[in-house]
Amino acid sequence: MNDLNGHDIEDLRVGMSATFSKTITEADIVLFAGVSGDSNAIHINEEYAATTPFKGRIAHGMLSASVISAAVANRLPGPGAIYLNQQLNFLAPVRPGDTVHATVKVREVVADRGRVVLETTCRVKGVMVIDGEALVKVDSSARRAAKAAAQSAAPAIA
Amino acid sequence: MNDLNGHDIEDLRVGMSATFSKTITEADIVLFAGVSGDSNAIHINEEYAATTPFKGRIAHGMLSASVISAAVANRLPGPGAIYLNQQLNFLAPVRPGDTVHATVKVREVVADRGRVVLETTCRVKGVMVIDGEALVKVDSSARRAAKAAAQSAAPAIA
Repeated sequence: MNDLNGHDIEDLRVGMSATFSKTITEADIVLFAGVSGDSNAIHINEEYAATTPFKGRIAHGMLSASVISAAVANRLPGPGAIYLNQQLNFLAPVRPGDTVHATVKVREVVADRGRVVLETTCRVKGVMVIDGEALVKVDSSARRAAKAAAQSAAPAIA
Repeated sequence: MNDLNGHDIEDLRVGMSATFSKTITEADIVLFAGVSGDSNAIHINEEYAATTPFKGRIAHGMLSASVISAAVANRLPGPGAIYLNQQLNFLAPVRPGDTVHATVKVREVVADRGRVVLETTCRVKGVMVIDGEALVKVDSSARRAAKAAAQSAAPAIA
């Protein structure tokens, strides 16, 4: 683990998984419309949304997907991880008040390159609403140890 | 175009493009940490972030990517479009104060299925920070016309 309690590449094994969950509130949808600039009527106009096949407002797909970002950053690999790639399939709508459970599971560890491939899914009441895959860069405890050893072995500057 | 001024499948041609731009402010980063639950130190802790190769806080990758969602929803195809898939490669950091220009360009129109494949890129000061591809569902003016004709031809309910 690193100083922030995040996993190093040496800590990761295929099959490890973690979940981060968050309720998507009305406030989240309004704020996400603001930070993204995405003011699609399906997200912010109940009268319009009620006339669509969704029968009411739904959360932005990228808002639900952002809970995956939290699972990666907070849980697995955790703090210190750097996102390189995310692939997302939006399978079903998320509505205000739904709790999104984002699960990340290690699919592959590319140790020599410090990369990990994660299966990334979001579920609401057991139904998969997003699936996909992420590629994340993580640090190496061996790399940090080697760097520290090289620094302590270096001659002092006169 | 539909009633919300969004493009129908019949309006779309390969090569059409549109850009939506948004400055990513300090406020956006704080609010995105809140709505996503992603409180990675690289986004919210300046003292930590200054010790990393990034030399300071950076925006969440999914926050910059959300500007693509706005380009899709607000511009091309525009209102009424439904996100089915988004693939994202995070190429370079976005910092507080950077303006993200999200460009979507039609790569393929699958007319019979009402689907459009978009090339999706984000640039900051001309440098590509995200690239990827999206699959979006759009409505058909022909489908709406056929539905309206069928309804007007139906016998009145006694």
